[in-house]
Amino acid sequence: MPGGATPTETLGDVGEFGLIQRIRRLFPGTEPTVVHGIGDDVAVVRTDSDHLLLVTCDCQIEGVHFLRHALNFWDLGWRAASVNLSDLAAMGGEPLWAVVSLMAPAELPVKAVEDLYRGMADALRPWQATVVGGNTARHPDRLVVDVTLLGRARPDGIVTRDGARPGDVIVVTGTLGGARAGLEWARGRVAGDAPEVRKQAMARYRTPRARVAEGKALAATGRVRAMLDVSDGLLGDLRHLCQASGVGALVEAACIPVDPCCRQTALSVGADPLEWALRGGEDYELLFSVDRQGGVGQVMEALGAVSDVAFAVIGWIVPREAGIQVVFPDGTRRSLTAEGGWDHFGSRPDK
Amino acid sequence: MPGGATPTETLGDVGEFGLIQRIRRLFPGTEPTVVHGIGDDVAVVRTDSDHLLLVTCDCQIEGVHFLRHALNFWDLGWRAASVNLSDLAAMGGEPLWAVVSLMAPAELPVKAVEDLYRGMADALRPWQATVVGGNTARHPDRLVVDVTLLGRARPDGIVTRDGARPGDVIVVTGTLGGARAGLEWARGRVAGDAPEVRKQAMARYRTPRARVAEGKALAATGRVRAMLDVSDGLLGDLRHLCQASGVGALVEAACIPVDPCCRQTALSVGADPLEWALRGGEDYELLFSVDRQGGVGQVMEALGAVSDVAFAVIGWIVPREAGIQVVFPDGTRRSLTAEGGWDHFGSRPDK
Repeated sequence: MPGGATPTETLGDVGEFGLIQRIRRLFPGTEPTVVHGIGDDVAVVRTDSDHLLLVTCDCQIEGVHFLRHALNFWDLGWRAASVNLSDLAAMGGEPLWAVVSLMAPAELPVKAVEDLYRGMADALRPWQATVVGGNTARHPDRLVVDVTLLGRARPDGIVTRDGARPGDVIVVTGTLGGARAGLEWARGRVAGDAPEVRKQAMARYRTPRARVAEGKALAATGRVRAMLDVSDGLLGDLRHLCQASGVGALVEAACIPVDPCCRQTALSVGADPLEWALRGGEDYELLFSVDRQGGVGQVMEALGAVSDVAFAVIGWIVPREAGIQVVFPDGTRRSLTAEGGWDHFGSRPDK
Repeated sequence: MPGGATPTETLGDVGEFGLIQRIRRLFPGTEPTVVHGIGDDVAVVRTDSDHLLLVTCDCQIEGVHFLRHALNFWDLGWRAASVNLSDLAAMGGEPLWAVVSLMAPAELPVKAVEDLYRGMADALRPWQATVVGGNTARHPDRLVVDVTLLGRARPDGIVTRDGARPGDVIVVTGTLGGARAGLEWARGRVAGDAPEVRKQAMARYRTPRARVAEGKALAATGRVRAMLDVSDGLLGDLRHLCQASGVGALVEAACIPVDPCCRQTALSVGADPLEWALRGGEDYELLFSVDRQGGVGQVMEALGAVSDVAFAVIGWIVPREAGIQVVFPDGTRRSLTAEGGWDHFGSRPDK
């Protein structure tokens, strides 16, 4: 590629400042809010007083959050940006600026790092967000990408995770379990030939789409009481929402929007698609609770106005004492234990 | 300590959310600008329209930036915050909020992490800055602390590294080489008994003081043309300033403020104190250039009004073609090579 790295050039060859020059070329810095972008130790940007500033950070550690053979570097950059976009989206924020801390072995090719930053740039671009600065450091044996994303929201356009109240309905966008299915394909655990299923599942895992427009529209309704993104798995994140809000939840398993590629992949390896959808993680959909008194229709209209994403009402917020319970299609009801497993002898408040 | 961790409890024992609760206790969140602090995925803060927003990040990687036996965890927290405070100071910024990405092995004691965050809190507190959020993740085998620091400056109170012009004088605050001496002591390389020297040197290495008040006062004069902090060593950072500004520099070695503990430690191990002062790094002093026409007195007065730190005029900015040259006390003049070594046959424009 013209101006890019040669295939054999490593970070050790170009050094820290050579690398920064390469990265700088990828971010021409045309955003009017950016006063000083990449190149100094400090980035300078212009905020406005109508908005609050939102700050989030999330890292991708090789061997923990990703395996190099399961992702290419562009994918890794896309993911590193998207997990942060998703956190911001779940609060109703608009992304603006990212600073990136790159920690990498000296033998990593420069081309890999350029691809990584291109992936970040591509994930940020739809929102006119961009990388404005950061830091590069040598890591002896592992690639780590730590992104801090800054964004903004109007003071009345922010939703946190702690506002759910008994009686709220619980809604989730999109479908679940697709990223988990993609991970199985990426790890080579799925035998058989189903190229379309493989392609869809891999896309869910490698290039998740953060629900930025949806999160902002939902928050702006004023009817969403608590929201977060599904990164740890539906049940894990529902538990975070319930703990922060001091409530419990009742989930109808039959209403869980299991991704078609999750269903097909799970069945082909003898796994339970519903279990993947409930616990798989990394789907980066939005999970939120809505005031049942008049709020649901308004919220759904607002969502439909900005997005064609599907959504599902999957249950209700209940008092804290009931814990988190799932009603399965066969009528059995199970409680989530503190460790995240099932308590088959869980409390049955309605019996 | 009441409310703190027991000595044996590890991160694996308390889990991510248990750990976040512990960290949250250390930051009561009384700063009026903090709308939502630690506990959600996203922190929310209030900016004002009179100021620009400054963003910087810098990480501490075990085995690269620190060795566990050479620092305690409080020191590590202090350093992780201070290296960022120093970057912000060098631009004239006021620190406000930090987000911290902690990557740590599961077997790390919770008490160590609490000490680390206490060190950060103590380094930030003099500026009413605080940790407002972040992320924790498992790192398989290494402790990594990545801090993103946000701050502010008035649009006319920002100094970058690229404004130096031939004729400017070059000034450095404080003394140099002390951190390098402390590193030698920390690594057990210094024999002999000099407890006061050891103590001073170790303090320079373990608990550097970022020149925040000084940086802001210097930037506010409007007479400082380029500034950065001495993190990579005087010559390394002078080169960054010269490259960014498109200029060269002439340094009088006799004017370099060699730290007394550097001098004594270096002599005791048979090293050259001047070499440590020129290349040692991690002193976190400010290096800046000042318009010689009437600016110097005003800048020095501004510095003296906020700080009793010493400063030294160490040389002059010259045209780019001259490169970076050092005149040694014996009259020899050496040029810095592109690799950072000495070219004994360097250009001699005045001969």
